[in-house]
Amino acid sequence: MRILTAGESHGEFESAIIEGFPCGVTIDENPINHELSRRQAGYGRGKRMAIESDHVKIVSGLRNKITLGSPITLLVRNSDHKIFTQGKDDLPAITLPRPAHADLAGIFKYGGKDCRNILERASARETVARVACGSLCKQFLNNFDIKIASFVRSLGKVECKKNPENIEEITAKTKNSQTGCLDDVKAREMIRLIDGAAKKGDSLGGIAEIWIDGVVPGVGSFMQYDKRFDAQFAAALMGIPAVKGVEVGLGFEYARMPGSTSHDEIFYNSAKGFYHKTNHSGGIEGGMSNGEAIVLRMAVKPIATLLEPLNSVDINSKKSAKAAVVRSDTCAVLAAGVIAESMAAIVVTQAILEKFGGDSLKEISANYKNYVKGLR
Amino acid sequence: MRILTAGESHGEFESAIIEGFPCGVTIDENPINHELSRRQAGYGRGKRMAIESDHVKIVSGLRNKITLGSPITLLVRNSDHKIFTQGKDDLPAITLPRPAHADLAGIFKYGGKDCRNILERASARETVARVACGSLCKQFLNNFDIKIASFVRSLGKVECKKNPENIEEITAKTKNSQTGCLDDVKAREMIRLIDGAAKKGDSLGGIAEIWIDGVVPGVGSFMQYDKRFDAQFAAALMGIPAVKGVEVGLGFEYARMPGSTSHDEIFYNSAKGFYHKTNHSGGIEGGMSNGEAIVLRMAVKPIATLLEPLNSVDINSKKSAKAAVVRSDTCAVLAAGVIAESMAAIVVTQAILEKFGGDSLKEISANYKNYVKGLR
Amino acid sequence: MRILTAGESHGEFESAIIEGFPCGVTIDENPINHELSRRQAGYGRGKRMAIESDHVKIVSGLRNKITLGSPITLLVRNSDHKIFTQGKDDLPAITLPRPAHADLAGIFKYGGKDCRNILERASARETVARVACGSLCKQFLNNFDIKIASFVRSLGKVECKKNPENIEEITAKTKNSQTGCLDDVKAREMIRLIDGAAKKGDSLGGIAEIWIDGVVPGVGSFMQYDKRFDAQFAAALMGIPAVKGVEVGLGFEYARMPGSTSHDEIFYNSAKGFYHKTNHSGGIEGGMSNGEAIVLRMAVKPIATLLEPLNSVDINSKKSAKAAVVRSDTCAVLAAGVIAESMAAIVVTQAILEKFGGDSLKEISANYKNYVKGLR
Amino acid sequence: MRILTAGESHGEFESAIIEGFPCGVTIDENPINHELSRRQAGYGRGKRMAIESDHVKIVSGLRNKITLGSPITLLVRNSDHKIFTQGKDDLPAITLPRPAHADLAGIFKYGGKDCRNILERASARETVARVACGSLCKQFLNNFDIKIASFVRSLGKVECKKNPENIEEITAKTKNSQTGCLDDVKAREMIRLIDGAAKKGDSLGGIAEIWIDGVVPGVGSFMQYDKRFDAQFAAALMGIPAVKGVEVGLGFEYARMPGSTSHDEIFYNSAKGFYHKTNHSGGIEGGMSNGEAIVLRMAVKPIATLLEPLNSVDINSKKSAKAAVVRSDTCAVLAAGVIAESMAAIVVTQAILEKFGGDSLKEISANYKNYVKGLR
Repeated sequence: MRILTAGESHGEFESAIIEGFPCGVTIDENPINHELSRRQAGYGRGKRMAIESDHVKIVSGLRNKITLGSPITLLVRNSDHKIFTQGKDDLPAITLPRPAHADLAGIFKYGGKDCRNILERASARETVARVACGSLCKQFLNNFDIKIASFVRSLGKVECKKNPENIEEITAKTKNSQTGCLDDVKAREMIRLIDGAAKKGDSLGGIAEIWIDGVVPGVGSFMQYDKRFDAQFAAALMGIPAVKGVEVGLGFEYARMPGSTSHDEIFYNSAKGFYHKTNHSGGIEGGMSNGEAIVLRMAVKPIATLLEPLNSVDINSKKSAKAAVVRSDTCAVLAAGVIAESMAAIVVTQAILEKFGGDSLKEISANYKNYVKGLR
Repeated sequence: MRILTAGESHGEFESAIIEGFPCGVTIDENPINHELSRRQAGYGRGKRMAIESDHVKIVSGLRNKITLGSPITLLVRNSDHKIFTQGKDDLPAITLPRPAHADLAGIFKYGGKDCRNILERASARETVARVACGSLCKQFLNNFDIKIASFVRSLGKVECKKNPENIEEITAKTKNSQTGCLDDVKAREMIRLIDGAAKKGDSLGGIAEIWIDGVVPGVGSFMQYDKRFDAQFAAALMGIPAVKGVEVGLGFEYARMPGSTSHDEIFYNSAKGFYHKTNHSGGIEGGMSNGEAIVLRMAVKPIATLLEPLNSVDINSKKSAKAAVVRSDTCAVLAAGVIAESMAAIVVTQAILEKFGGDSLKEISANYKNYVKGLR
Repeated sequence: MRILTAGESHGEFESAIIEGFPCGVTIDENPINHELSRRQAGYGRGKRMAIESDHVKIVSGLRNKITLGSPITLLVRNSDHKIFTQGKDDLPAITLPRPAHADLAGIFKYGGKDCRNILERASARETVARVACGSLCKQFLNNFDIKIASFVRSLGKVECKKNPENIEEITAKTKNSQTGCLDDVKAREMIRLIDGAAKKGDSLGGIAEIWIDGVVPGVGSFMQYDKRFDAQFAAALMGIPAVKGVEVGLGFEYARMPGSTSHDEIFYNSAKGFYHKTNHSGGIEGGMSNGEAIVLRMAVKPIATLLEPLNSVDINSKKSAKAAVVRSDTCAVLAAGVIAESMAAIVVTQAILEKFGGDSLKEISANYKNYVKGLR
Repeated sequence: MRILTAGESHGEFESAIIEGFPCGVTIDENPINHELSRRQAGYGRGKRMAIESDHVKIVSGLRNKITLGSPITLLVRNSDHKIFTQGKDDLPAITLPRPAHADLAGIFKYGGKDCRNILERASARETVARVACGSLCKQFLNNFDIKIASFVRSLGKVECKKNPENIEEITAKTKNSQTGCLDDVKAREMIRLIDGAAKKGDSLGGIAEIWIDGVVPGVGSFMQYDKRFDAQFAAALMGIPAVKGVEVGLGFEYARMPGSTSHDEIFYNSAKGFYHKTNHSGGIEGGMSNGEAIVLRMAVKPIATLLEPLNSVDINSKKSAKAAVVRSDTCAVLAAGVIAESMAAIVVTQAILEKFGGDSLKEISANYKNYVKGLR
């Protein structure tokens, strides 16, 4: 499976083509639109989220809601479309690069005198296309009872230490949550923190945690370094704008414990087969799934655009001034978690397709069942 | 540039082929062997490290020490070679999978009744080939004044909070260090910790930090998610055995700070051009290098094999028993840092080749100089 | 540069995303539409060509006609759109697979009871997206004075043995030609042949020849088999529907001659530098361009759908019957040549980008000039 | 599956690493050595073939003759090894580039003053590594009753029009043949032709034909242009040194026939299922296997090095002179066919692995059987 995404923040569409998606999968646009609205939600989002209400349009790859095995084209319209590929737009030039954004490095890379040419694609708006693709992958993974969910582990300095029992708890507790936090007391603290930051024109980051449930053991590989499942998840999550850290299982905490108390011991009973009583590994050992829930965590830095802007320098005049202000949010950790779910869904789908081959859902399911039978 | 590595722990050779390495680069085997010995060093390493003294042999791609632009084949002999590809070895079968290792998931994936068939390739011994490749890349990067170094930030619960001034400080202080720690007091604490763990048959992990100095701004890209420089570093580091977390710059700490005090503001003077006074981003913004030192950190879990083994289950009889004991180390965080330097060198080389094109060092250097001239 | 295309024959759009196309290239939609109309032209085309008049719409990657370096999304509407991805179409099922088409093998591969699910994507209609991409690449290559053109070497048994002097002759003579033949007498024979075949419900194939002028020597590589320029052209041309053979330079004729009279001898004078008096190699030696015009030839089999259909078997009932008849052409060799130009433009662009690196046209041009200077 | 090959003509080893080869395949070195000796055989081969007697050494990826699923490293020693990667060789500089070889274009590409640096890798000697890899793939394909063979269709102007009944006939008739020709009379003509050319210091080319028997229908794809089976074969064959043309099935002849008499009609009976009475398509329709034997043909140009050399120009002095003479053959079409078999085996293996997924031969075989069951 190969994916390419495209789209500028003020362009006509965010778009994507997914190649190698199997034939015979029923695809509903509603769950995709639901994921797109989850990407826009969360306490601390700004005006843009109100402007947009994203809807996907699928223009190839499906016939009567069922995939043909052919490449799938997804389009999501940008409602405040300003860039005309063949005409002239009236978007003002931006010459004061925002710290922590692509603006300055992008100007070095591509040349030119207008950071607008950089930030249009570097905007996190592009993750719309990833979420649409990820939602498609989730619909595929449903056929194998693989579920993906996320929650907000911490927001700024407010941390929720509570661990969910299982993925159902995550889904249930985040469903109508503005914060994505599993604990009500902490959630209220987070809201107060966001309110305070918003008032000061400041921004916040946080930590999101992603769970993937139902992956059979033996997916991924240790045979070549780029085939490791954890390496692929790390790339997928670190490749989300604003992410500065990724953990699997206990992550950095694992490095502080001795082996005797940290490694997940192996047990067996006839009902469960082989199993672990702990999941410090986060479901991945030796670059492969080990049958436990895959647990990932990522650090999201504060939004780069501040309404009370930081120091910058004009790229043309070289004079110091405050950075440009582009409409933005105070905080988007919850949304980052939704994007991470999508990226994780893409990684898992690719690994499943590689492990089980096949061109149609029917064929893949048969191969999958045959493998699962052999596990016991 | 494409790389494939190969080799089993008891096979005849660890090997690698590097394709797309430019022509005209002088390659000396001595620095490669030096890196290989760095990979074997560090307080807390076990018997295997004494057995082996790794030497690379280059059997293609060079003529009279200079690269031809053709694929480079690297071989490193395993001195306790036992596996004969065409004969029968006398290595005992391993049926008690070690927790935290590839053993059990590997048996699920590939089938069979002997974890030996899994652990031979899953052993961290395979990183020999990566270090040899990385050392070659370092020799290429020298031509662009790009330097890479690493140190041990923490070992178990002992953490050194000291930040180096620059990469030269790292190189100098770790040169003859058994621990790779930048602070002598902390280094002694680390040694005591390792001694204690060794006595108990326990193992330890820790955190290594990697610096890459001299990368011009604009390397990497935000245009497609898999092109992001930070995503590529994350995959490269998470793909090292035992790594459970990766950070760029402040990493998880960045997520706890507000935007107003965390983002790196932009300054300019005629001597330096554009610059930052802080480096919280760790040298990467918007998926690209921003001209500051690239700073990466990774969490290394404790060694999986314990001399005082954990609970496991026999894969054939399904009976509980203590896990297999294979010769091993107490701690290898310092070595993990050396491997990470190599993986980082590979990532940077690939990005430089992609950005500057060219078939020979001469051509790449001309393209590079032309770009650098345009940066001011 | 990576390209994915998508689209079904009766879907809403043929589409493509091009990733890695450099920044700073002025892109006009008119030449793209002109290429799309060339793809539809030629004596012997059927009704569909009358229905459609293809126009590209670019919805990402450009701002004010200039590429941003971001992925470019191309859409071409199918005017007789019938497939609704989320609804039910009324397209009749096809159960009688057409010989020489994907119909039967596709049903084996994907399962199902309706060849329609196969032929919608297997239709040569999908080449619309390739031609749009190729035209973009041509606009890039114009900056390096690289020109691509094609003509019809033979149609059925009518062969034009005349060789063009240069690429300008090809462009001039095919400009308003219905047949794409360089010789008027032969062109009239071809038209008579097509008229005869059309009357009988038969179809015809032929041979198209593609010239690429202006590629500097040293593009492509012999270092790894998949890097060879000729291998890449072979894949690009053989991957066009109906193509059954590909030649470079003298091709199969070269195999019949002794080395003494076939190889292109090397000459030098101060005006031209190194040059050849003949071009039997077709501009490629050792997997690289050698500075002469690149000459490719491909065999196009007759159109698979016959109005007077061949024997087939119903995929469900297993009963013999005549194959399905879908609207079609008598002959499309001229159009196949246009598609081949596009595929060649994609291959050359990829090779140029790999050889010269760079993110913007300005940077690539500087690298290119530096290389060209070194050639003398 | 990914393959990288390496090696210079006078280097220590030709080598290769194959990654992604499945676990559980028994690999014998003898058939590999047999293929290597076939690559060296044939009437018209020169001294080098007498010098070398190639033997493979597998140094990773196998344990007790069985693949582990880990990367396989193959080494074949060059017996007249002269290049010392870390020392100085005494090979004379070559400054008179041979027409029809990589020599001149390579000097343009990589710079330098010695064509030796180009021709060492550009030599057809590198195909040793491909044949070793291909032989491994053949041993894998044996498990699916997929057979590959080749013969010499024509040598210079001597053409054998006889078509074999089946692949067994090819294997039987070429087994002890010096020419690889299926007809004894024509074989004698070929030998006379070679003798004549040798006497004059001239060289010859020819046409080799490759058959692949036993590929189930539905392998390959039409969904994206680079996924087409015929495109992949075309690249694999055109990527062999000296190949200037590739055909599938009737190839160029197909383009001369009308559709009514050329396309392979579809039949069915309960014993065979769906079948064709003709195989003009050469086993590939719509970019997929259709269940018939896959038939490929390739044009091999005459050997580039002539003992009675052609005109050339010294790359340093720019003075005209006769081209360099490097030890060489008169004709190597038979060997080119052997190399083509190997390349075809690689392509088929990759496609089988993609279609049927799986990590072990056992798992792939189960998936394969399940698919085959569904074909009837």
